[in-house]
Amino acid sequence: MYRTHTCGELRLADVGKEVTLSGWVQRVRDKGTLLWVDLRDRYGITQLFMQEGVTPSEVIEKARSLGREYVIQVKGVVIERESKNPNMPTGDIEIKVQMINILTVSKIPPFTIEDKSDGGDELRMKYRYLDLRRNPLKNNIILRHNMAIQTRNYLSSNGFLEIETPCLIKSTPEGARDFVVPSRMNPGEFYALPQSPQQFKQLLMVAGFDRYFQIVRCFRDEDLRADRQPEFTQIDCEMSFVEQDDVLNMFEGLVKHLFKEVKGIEFEQFPRITWHDAMKYYGSDKPDIRFGMRFVELTDLVKGKNFPVFDDAELVVGINAQGCAGYTRKQIDALTDFVKRPQVGAKGLVYVKYNEDGTVKSSVDKFYTSDDLKIWLDRFEAKPGDMLLILSGKAMETRTQLNVLRLEMGNQLGLRNPDNYKPLWVVDFPLLEWDEETQRYYAMHHPFTAPKPEDEYLLEDETQWGKIRANAYDIVLNGVEVGGGSIRIHDSNLQGKMFHTLGFTEEKAKEQFGFLMNAFEYGAPPHAGLAFGFDRLCALFGGQDSIRDFIAFPKNNMGRDMMAESPSPISEEQLEELQIKLDLKQ
Amino acid sequence: MYRTHTCGELRLADVGKEVTLSGWVQRVRDKGTLLWVDLRDRYGITQLFMQEGVTPSEVIEKARSLGREYVIQVKGVVIERESKNPNMPTGDIEIKVQMINILTVSKIPPFTIEDKSDGGDELRMKYRYLDLRRNPLKNNIILRHNMAIQTRNYLSSNGFLEIETPCLIKSTPEGARDFVVPSRMNPGEFYALPQSPQQFKQLLMVAGFDRYFQIVRCFRDEDLRADRQPEFTQIDCEMSFVEQDDVLNMFEGLVKHLFKEVKGIEFEQFPRITWHDAMKYYGSDKPDIRFGMRFVELTDLVKGKNFPVFDDAELVVGINAQGCAGYTRKQIDALTDFVKRPQVGAKGLVYVKYNEDGTVKSSVDKFYTSDDLKIWLDRFEAKPGDMLLILSGKAMETRTQLNVLRLEMGNQLGLRNPDNYKPLWVVDFPLLEWDEETQRYYAMHHPFTAPKPEDEYLLEDETQWGKIRANAYDIVLNGVEVGGGSIRIHDSNLQGKMFHTLGFTEEKAKEQFGFLMNAFEYGAPPHAGLAFGFDRLCALFGGQDSIRDFIAFPKNNMGRDMMAESPSPISEEQLEELQIKLDLKQ
Repeated sequence: MYRTHTCGELRLADVGKEVTLSGWVQRVRDKGTLLWVDLRDRYGITQLFMQEGVTPSEVIEKARSLGREYVIQVKGVVIERESKNPNMPTGDIEIKVQMINILTVSKIPPFTIEDKSDGGDELRMKYRYLDLRRNPLKNNIILRHNMAIQTRNYLSSNGFLEIETPCLIKSTPEGARDFVVPSRMNPGEFYALPQSPQQFKQLLMVAGFDRYFQIVRCFRDEDLRADRQPEFTQIDCEMSFVEQDDVLNMFEGLVKHLFKEVKGIEFEQFPRITWHDAMKYYGSDKPDIRFGMRFVELTDLVKGKNFPVFDDAELVVGINAQGCAGYTRKQIDALTDFVKRPQVGAKGLVYVKYNEDGTVKSSVDKFYTSDDLKIWLDRFEAKPGDMLLILSGKAMETRTQLNVLRLEMGNQLGLRNPDNYKPLWVVDFPLLEWDEETQRYYAMHHPFTAPKPEDEYLLEDETQWGKIRANAYDIVLNGVEVGGGSIRIHDSNLQGKMFHTLGFTEEKAKEQFGFLMNAFEYGAPPHAGLAFGFDRLCALFGGQDSIRDFIAFPKNNMGRDMMAESPSPISEEQLEELQIKLDLKQ
Repeated sequence: MYRTHTCGELRLADVGKEVTLSGWVQRVRDKGTLLWVDLRDRYGITQLFMQEGVTPSEVIEKARSLGREYVIQVKGVVIERESKNPNMPTGDIEIKVQMINILTVSKIPPFTIEDKSDGGDELRMKYRYLDLRRNPLKNNIILRHNMAIQTRNYLSSNGFLEIETPCLIKSTPEGARDFVVPSRMNPGEFYALPQSPQQFKQLLMVAGFDRYFQIVRCFRDEDLRADRQPEFTQIDCEMSFVEQDDVLNMFEGLVKHLFKEVKGIEFEQFPRITWHDAMKYYGSDKPDIRFGMRFVELTDLVKGKNFPVFDDAELVVGINAQGCAGYTRKQIDALTDFVKRPQVGAKGLVYVKYNEDGTVKSSVDKFYTSDDLKIWLDRFEAKPGDMLLILSGKAMETRTQLNVLRLEMGNQLGLRNPDNYKPLWVVDFPLLEWDEETQRYYAMHHPFTAPKPEDEYLLEDETQWGKIRANAYDIVLNGVEVGGGSIRIHDSNLQGKMFHTLGFTEEKAKEQFGFLMNAFEYGAPPHAGLAFGFDRLCALFGGQDSIRDFIAFPKNNMGRDMMAESPSPISEEQLEELQIKLDLKQ
């Protein structure tokens, strides 16, 4: 037997026991006649103790030969420590070693296996199996396991069935780019890897499984920026015979359950806000409501004072940065530069300081009197010490710019603590989104999303398509979209109309979605669903921005696995069997 | 609200309640003044009742317009049935209908949605979403969900972490053929889809996660015969700091847990048999031990009686078909034809009947006296009424042939009841398997399987390689291998030796398994694992041979999804972006 106990479980009550432990050597401290070894495994660290004259000399010799990350097995007796370590669960005891067995040796690891490692990103990706030994990553992986278990518990106990859908499916050019898989048995033909099990879960509803879920791998061949992975995991869900409230309540329940079981946090009902209001008050469809600083519009107040920037603006809108009246010139210049960066794209920034002494100072004092500005301040409900930050221009652009500024101010004022969780629902998304480049409408969510029944008549009038609202909803946590879904179209006529709106010929629609359209002719129930980004949800629960360290073996920004060195060339024989060849551009 | 109750839950105690139900129309019975509709959902069937003069006439009219599989919503009051149906959980009540709302109409389905459908295989595959409405398939999918839940419960409560491993990995020509995925971002390079997460789970052991599992999709591009699918699901497990017994006990525990929770069956310890004995006594490495009929060898008894078939045979071996002395000439001829089929390949079949009256009759009476045959019968512990069936020839071939005959006799004698479960372990598999075609040894399990320590020295002597036993084990249920695994090599020297034995140059080994070999240089713990074929396990628990109906959306023998019509051609643009082109043979 390799061990009687793990390295995390021995306590004072175990003193006197003969135990066997196995694990990795964290460090060796050799004080001449006394020698300690920290032995580590998944469960913790236990201190091993040896003493010259007491411990057999060959054991001490072996201990002196140990390097970091050697794997050893030890036998000994649990004793009480002389100097206890209250920071470790095993800190009251140590093992008086009688035997050491070196199971495997280790080369010196390329970085330290400590909570704060000295390894750079690339080195840590290449030696991922060593990086995963570090507590922060290990704990992320354990968190992810717990999240999955609790998700399954909640959904199963609510009558959901986890049903596996295929990974080798049909390629549909709509949406993001598919990864494809050549079929050797069907030469010239390809499978696609699923971007989501959307169509299959809808088929399961047609099949009568009224509550489906799956924690499922999905794939998107997109250019990877920021924090995307070519393969990612969704909590994918679908329900039949439900209305929007049923869906929101069910999955709000899931998120509450996860918070309670995994984080010990309890929530009241999540706020719900329309997409329209989210844009109006936060300039974002995923508002971070850990802090206020809601947008206040001034367009009606600022016109006709010969300030051309505002006079020409479709929208003048600002935020109240509370307590920031003391911002220096330099700080304000920095903010101005920040919003003028090409990534943000504002033309300039107007500020109004409401000084502690009641006076007002702004960057537009030339155009507006103190009284004018006081009216603005009133609308913001500003108090002495506050500062307004105002942008102007075309409506949607300006809102988007102000959103970036609002988040930046949230950061500067320390209002975005990752341990403060503020979930909300954003509902009533637009059904369609106009694309300038291809000069057509695209489905904002996907082509199966139902318009709100009261907006359905607008489908008849092409000029009104942009105004149609969908029964679509997102769940947002701390400014991050963690899930989204919609009521689906279950009527094949309406689905036909929708395909027409999206510019699909009947033939094209049949070719791509034929089996789903067929299925809808055999009694489709009303249904709706939602999918959570599981990697992202885990990262947020772990209080982090990046998903990469919540995935055991992630890929880098080029879609490469730095450790396994994939992708990689394949053999001529493989290509020949698949009846494809390379066609590399120079 | 679409429903207050499901179609499976109303009982006598609910009489008087106003309810709303939604579901599919199973059938309409119109008896003139009285009208019944069977309404079906995932949970059951509830009878709807209407009566002319009582039910509003427009409701009756609507009911008369209903076709099979229409989706409707009804409101009404629960009443006690006059003629109850004890075969249905809802058979005591019916709904006195007040309102019918047709949610969606249905075309006439191409086959009946009944337990026994009139649809052929192909039609049912094409309309899989309708086939899944049938109870047998629906119940299989529910069984599978329960199996997955119980697997996760057991493993989680034993400290296993479910850790997701990548789907886009590196292609390794060893083993079965990979599905590959061209990488657009890395032109000329390909990912492979995993045949199993073998290397990643071993890396997780190196990373210190000492108990890993995953219910995971795997892929094999093999010619699909019988009951194989190009994508399939494994319960994949790995443990560190364990010996073989630890592994067998842990996963025997899993199977026991599943039997108890899912089937209500409890087991004592599973029998364990060596591979050598399994071959000797059953001619198979996956013996069906629902019945005895173990092989008995006669080689030493039969020589020198001028029967050249036996005189020339390396092995003479038989089974005792108890109670079969009454088999007719015709029946025995049929058995002889059966074993002489090319798929079995025996040259002939010798029988010895031990008649009820104590006389003996055999097909070799010319060569053996009654006394000779009595000695044979004794060795078989045969009783009057029994019949021996004997084959001869080269040892392994003959055993394999007798295995087929034994299973056939088990079938004929009704000894293979699918509801009678007999699991067992087969242990001590050979490490290596000689392949005539390529004239080299292959790993019987995989290249990371450890030889038994006591056989390790044989690696030094090439002539002995076929005799090396591995620490490898299979779990077998009713003659089907449902899982298998091994103790892994954790020492990089031994792994190097193993690669050499398998004919890998050091370069080739580095190229294919480099990252695993690297990992092993940084302190690999002793570890071992096992994987279950989850589709197969579910099918066996469902009492069926075929896995196809335990997968929601399976593929046919050509790897095609008949419903979605995949694989399919992809566009020129897609090929161009991937920098590949078709190279179709004529």
